[in-house]
Amino acid sequence: MSFVVQKFGGTSVASVDHIENVARKIMAARERGDQVAAVVSAMGDQTDRLDSLAKEVGFNGEGSRREIDVLLSSGEQVTMAVLSMVLMKLGCPAKSFTGRQAGILTDSSHTRARIQSIDTEALRSSLDRGEVPVVAGFQGIDDAGDITTFGRGGSDTTAVALAAVLGADECQIFTDVEGVYTTDPRAVDTARLMEQVTFEEMLELASLGSRVLHSRAVEFASKYQVPLRVLSTFEDGPGTLITKEDSNMEQPIISGIAFTRDEAKLTVLGVEDVPGIAWKILGPISEANIEVDMILQNVAADNTTDFTFTVSREDYEEAMDILGKVANDIHAREVTGDNKIAKLSMVGVGMRSHAGVASKMFEVLAEKSINIQMISTSEIKVSVVIGEEYIELATRALHSAFDLEEQGIKS
Amino acid sequence: MSFVVQKFGGTSVASVDHIENVARKIMAARERGDQVAAVVSAMGDQTDRLDSLAKEVGFNGEGSRREIDVLLSSGEQVTMAVLSMVLMKLGCPAKSFTGRQAGILTDSSHTRARIQSIDTEALRSSLDRGEVPVVAGFQGIDDAGDITTFGRGGSDTTAVALAAVLGADECQIFTDVEGVYTTDPRAVDTARLMEQVTFEEMLELASLGSRVLHSRAVEFASKYQVPLRVLSTFEDGPGTLITKEDSNMEQPIISGIAFTRDEAKLTVLGVEDVPGIAWKILGPISEANIEVDMILQNVAADNTTDFTFTVSREDYEEAMDILGKVANDIHAREVTGDNKIAKLSMVGVGMRSHAGVASKMFEVLAEKSINIQMISTSEIKVSVVIGEEYIELATRALHSAFDLEEQGIKS
Repeated sequence: MSFVVQKFGGTSVASVDHIENVARKIMAARERGDQVAAVVSAMGDQTDRLDSLAKEVGFNGEGSRREIDVLLSSGEQVTMAVLSMVLMKLGCPAKSFTGRQAGILTDSSHTRARIQSIDTEALRSSLDRGEVPVVAGFQGIDDAGDITTFGRGGSDTTAVALAAVLGADECQIFTDVEGVYTTDPRAVDTARLMEQVTFEEMLELASLGSRVLHSRAVEFASKYQVPLRVLSTFEDGPGTLITKEDSNMEQPIISGIAFTRDEAKLTVLGVEDVPGIAWKILGPISEANIEVDMILQNVAADNTTDFTFTVSREDYEEAMDILGKVANDIHAREVTGDNKIAKLSMVGVGMRSHAGVASKMFEVLAEKSINIQMISTSEIKVSVVIGEEYIELATRALHSAFDLEEQGIKS
Repeated sequence: MSFVVQKFGGTSVASVDHIENVARKIMAARERGDQVAAVVSAMGDQTDRLDSLAKEVGFNGEGSRREIDVLLSSGEQVTMAVLSMVLMKLGCPAKSFTGRQAGILTDSSHTRARIQSIDTEALRSSLDRGEVPVVAGFQGIDDAGDITTFGRGGSDTTAVALAAVLGADECQIFTDVEGVYTTDPRAVDTARLMEQVTFEEMLELASLGSRVLHSRAVEFASKYQVPLRVLSTFEDGPGTLITKEDSNMEQPIISGIAFTRDEAKLTVLGVEDVPGIAWKILGPISEANIEVDMILQNVAADNTTDFTFTVSREDYEEAMDILGKVANDIHAREVTGDNKIAKLSMVGVGMRSHAGVASKMFEVLAEKSINIQMISTSEIKVSVVIGEEYIELATRALHSAFDLEEQGIKS
């Protein structure tokens, strides 16, 4: 008998019919002899609707984030009650738990709270009684007894945290895709479902737009060494197991290729190359809560520098406005921008021991006459910025050149 | 300075715009120097929608009512967060409280819990800080920390209970009507808004279909002597004050006339008149959770009896089916029924000291050739069952005959 924590996201619990399907999955696992605790998100797009309600009020002053947490946390409360009732109707003992009832204590950073500790007594009693505890994802309470939430993807975090403290054998994240693919199957029809991937690789893939798993949950799972499995609520299949790096495992050089289209690039040309210039440019951007991804600085011959960075496409206009003002202050020659770019990243722990991945990547792109606008690398990743129109072509070419269709990972 | 608890029902908080209107009402009271605590219902028809969700699941087994409470209580949680944010946006300090956070401890009778005690510490601190505490109506927690709800109209009960324990000067129930009328203004255009009415009268009027106030809240207010005021969220005006009987007050004989159309009558004819026969007839009706209102039994000359009772019209078919079976067992001659009846009730504490109300009522109805099918009386009420088609005619005739348009209650 193993013990699994199963988490079901919004699309998996969008209606009572969907929830009945989820209940049958839980009961199938129990019939195989597993013990199950469930974690649920809000039904369908309910979190978005509650979020819109808060936006309609349009208040961001002191105290607003406490109330937004009260508002948002109601979504999971609905799902947990419905799933518990459906399970009981189908003959499976069940009981719902709010974040508070599940003993999830957090700090007081409303809308982005961090879990401090979990008092597992109530959940353990429920499991000991043979019930399926159904826990509201995404929420806890702070010392003052106020409701807190964890931000987007927070239900994954709840599931991983519970799996860690309850000593689960596996944390299963049920979603609307069959697992993690070598690249986006909508762009490359030979994209292959990965059997296994490491936490590190998943972190790079998650933050690069695969959108399968929230990166905070992966970090958490990595920290507490909780095996994570991503699998489909709608199709049967093993999904993808995300686990620690196994030295006995034959590592592929590249695990997957992630890309994101919603990028924009801004360049300040002809700035005097003096200390503090990067801060003068990026300070106002950061103050406007705009997140900067890649940053490049080239020194030109005339002792001036060109400074380039990328932001999310939705922040492009605002960032251009800010840069227009900044450019005046720092006597820059010109500000240019491009919001038709995309970022492509190749990820793989095998890069550590294999040189030449980047050069082979550049060669493949050159063969297709795709101009590389920016490059950034980490230990297990190479990212490039290219024109948006080339993104499918580049992904297909690289996916094939690095044999991602063929090369299996032994599980 | 006085201290008021203000309760806002579903129609008063149906949208963010509505909630802004509510916030301005609260702030107007504060500007007049009053201290305010607010109690809110779920937005619009949200409770009905959550209820439908539970019905869609269709599970009534053990544990279901605990989960229904978890489900339903989420509605008020949304409203309290939105109202608190709107108040803060408009510059008024506010803080939301779930039933648990407001310290409302109940028994464990899920979906119809009773308040056991209220720990007012958190609410008093909030009031002392100059905030408007915004409390979720309709809910509390039990000893085990489980969420409980109070049943329909439960938010009124929350408001009255808080007014009682916090020592409020008045509990104001804001709703979509201007107060309590002498009769239904849709049926009688000379219906008059009452300035004042006693708890006892209001109890009779509430349970008879005025639908302005939940009778449990009135009982509670009466028990703890909390002055209750019903008034409109949408129109300015003093509303109706519901308070204890004042010996100095000139009591009108009749305060109001209530009627309800959704009644049905069932009669078992020719039953042997032996002890236990009423139980044999009504036992199976009660087991089917059908509520019986008026009951009449006449002894006929041949030592048989005719047994008549009324039920809600929606229960008519089911009650007829049950009676069909019962009639066989008890060898009744016949079962007849009529689902086109209505009940009209005249209410007034003045009846205590004035004889002849019933006979005058019967005289007025006879003048209009309206046949009385059943009669029931209490100390301050006379109710009659008549054909549904006569209900407006009867109400108008009695409203005029008892001078309800003219006769004011001194406030």
